[in-house]
Amino acid sequence: MENFTFWSPTEFVFGRGTELRTGELAARFGAHKIMIVSGGGSAERSGLLARIRKTLQDAGLEYVDFAGVRPNPVASKVYEGIGIARAEKADFLLAVGGGSVIDTAKAIALGAPADTDFWKFYNGEASPQKAMPVGVVLTIPAAGSEGSGNSVITNEKTLQKISVRYPMLLRPKFAVMNPELTMTLLANQTAYGIVDMLCHIYERYFSNTAGTEIVDGYSEAIMRDIMDQATTLHFQPDNYEARAEVMWGGMLAHNGLCGVGKVEDWSSHRLEHEISAIYDVPHGAGLAVIVPAWLKFCARHNPDKIWKFAINVMSVDPSGHDTDEIIAEGISRLEDFYHDLGLTTSLRELIGQEPDIETMVCSLERNMGPTLGNYVTLSMDDCREIYRMAL
Amino acid sequence: MENFTFWSPTEFVFGRGTELRTGELAARFGAHKIMIVSGGGSAERSGLLARIRKTLQDAGLEYVDFAGVRPNPVASKVYEGIGIARAEKADFLLAVGGGSVIDTAKAIALGAPADTDFWKFYNGEASPQKAMPVGVVLTIPAAGSEGSGNSVITNEKTLQKISVRYPMLLRPKFAVMNPELTMTLLANQTAYGIVDMLCHIYERYFSNTAGTEIVDGYSEAIMRDIMDQATTLHFQPDNYEARAEVMWGGMLAHNGLCGVGKVEDWSSHRLEHEISAIYDVPHGAGLAVIVPAWLKFCARHNPDKIWKFAINVMSVDPSGHDTDEIIAEGISRLEDFYHDLGLTTSLRELIGQEPDIETMVCSLERNMGPTLGNYVTLSMDDCREIYRMAL
Repeated sequence: MENFTFWSPTEFVFGRGTELRTGELAARFGAHKIMIVSGGGSAERSGLLARIRKTLQDAGLEYVDFAGVRPNPVASKVYEGIGIARAEKADFLLAVGGGSVIDTAKAIALGAPADTDFWKFYNGEASPQKAMPVGVVLTIPAAGSEGSGNSVITNEKTLQKISVRYPMLLRPKFAVMNPELTMTLLANQTAYGIVDMLCHIYERYFSNTAGTEIVDGYSEAIMRDIMDQATTLHFQPDNYEARAEVMWGGMLAHNGLCGVGKVEDWSSHRLEHEISAIYDVPHGAGLAVIVPAWLKFCARHNPDKIWKFAINVMSVDPSGHDTDEIIAEGISRLEDFYHDLGLTTSLRELIGQEPDIETMVCSLERNMGPTLGNYVTLSMDDCREIYRMAL
Repeated sequence: MENFTFWSPTEFVFGRGTELRTGELAARFGAHKIMIVSGGGSAERSGLLARIRKTLQDAGLEYVDFAGVRPNPVASKVYEGIGIARAEKADFLLAVGGGSVIDTAKAIALGAPADTDFWKFYNGEASPQKAMPVGVVLTIPAAGSEGSGNSVITNEKTLQKISVRYPMLLRPKFAVMNPELTMTLLANQTAYGIVDMLCHIYERYFSNTAGTEIVDGYSEAIMRDIMDQATTLHFQPDNYEARAEVMWGGMLAHNGLCGVGKVEDWSSHRLEHEISAIYDVPHGAGLAVIVPAWLKFCARHNPDKIWKFAINVMSVDPSGHDTDEIIAEGISRLEDFYHDLGLTTSLRELIGQEPDIETMVCSLERNMGPTLGNYVTLSMDDCREIYRMAL
């Protein structure tokens, strides 16, 4: 096990009706004037935003709305939000939505108090020193941003999709997690979220660090449960208990608990970011395409952990089979799982055209340098090969 | 799953050499004058305290020593510490030790800034409004106090051993966790710690709350791993990786993660507290006696979760066996595990005399009222029966 620091100070307020506590929580964390960041309108239509505004009023807090954040959130929306936050003298950002909304709020939190262009905190040209506090009312379990110090923004001018991790600044103060709010998600939204949260665990699980049995053990348990609940939700989308387990699992997948003491490997996310940045497909849909191809490629070079995954997560019975067969069966079951959720594992099918792999690899190299990852260190030729294997 | 709030804001700084960061951490959390709370002298003899004092000096911090905390920490020591903390105008408590030292520091943290007798915060006569900040350098993984908002103190005048939970006040600001510091623990100290941390998970695992598969799953994984590592440590006490896994497992067992969304049942701890308060035996040794008896009693009335425990944690193969056989085998394996660690599961053998069960039950009723727990609600007659089954 490697040395590590684990700090997850977010207050998770979980369960039915908990959005009614938003005002009390924001006040406790020092808010006076709140900017409510939200998405495409579903939180307005469902009445959720009205309920939240009332709790803010009841707590004596002022607020201003900032709606219209889209999936694969973009820098232009962040600039717009920074302008409004400054003009309105907001001192607290309340994200009501999923990962895109939360990540936009986090980017505004970095940019609004800074003299520096916020994008420099993403492309590595500058380091942020402070951030506005962020609270969350989660409506889509997927990105795990409600418990993480991470944010992913796409710069639509440069076609760069960049993920940053500033845990000391960007961990939300609180996250309201009411599984009832996720009941009305469409089947594909639920599926994308499940693929994403599982991948947050894969990226930590597939590691060469020794002596991580306890972390691997609870990570496997969380992966198995998310897969089980996903299957339940596919047939019973209004099953509260399954919604609750997925919601909690999505947070655990990305608050760092599954990565403690391990060298992580975020290759699948990096490989996927090029797909969703260029073709504007849902991140989870892109991951369902990339992960099986990445696993197949890595199994040629470093099979051990994939073998363990096949047995302990995908429940492949190893008896009478060699390593290659066990791994092939494990990956095949994972593909079946994605297909059962209604997702494709074919890149061509996902984007509806022949992908421009050279552009993707070129952009990847520009964003990440000549190599990627460490479970298996990938050259750009390897990445090209993985994209081809995903076709 | 029940509604819950989970808030674990402690910064865990884990790994080799991390005690050298103590001064930096204490300074970051606002310390100026630190009271270093420690135990019977091993941290002095090993040079650990000298290393820590140097890091405090290097960080420009003042300190005063307060040593001599004993296992099953007592109220008189807390009063002494409160006096010194006030006289020295300490503004930060640094606990260097295991649960007894940390819990004493927490009691001082409640008592020193209050006008109220600290014991009233334990016996329920008063509620604390504030607490001094506490930091930890952990040397004995067991109590999980490094990540919890709990503290257990014995009032030696009234023979009451009372546990309190004030998460908003008592969660440590940081916990330095260097597994190397636990290498020199005696085999029985290691064993007591392992029994204790496992029991912190049992008390949350054995619950009637439905829809907790994800929590049960990772709890089972953590229990299995702690048991595996315990066996390794029995033969290789200086195995760093096993020490590391046990140390991390002990924190996870009690920071609340394994109890989220569940109605907990702390009967085993309550039943044991009477043994260690009256006969001054190690808490872990008492738990090894109580838990199997408690499981056998509960299995008569509510077998389901014990059956699951037997299969998923004690690895009993259920095929061809009925529920009673599976449970009996599971409990038998748990007893064997304790025996393999060198512990007895007999109350008589533990205390070296015939126990005064009536006094224990009488004290239990005074501390806890007429019933105990809820996985199976125990009357005082039931508790008497469990003590007899543990003989």
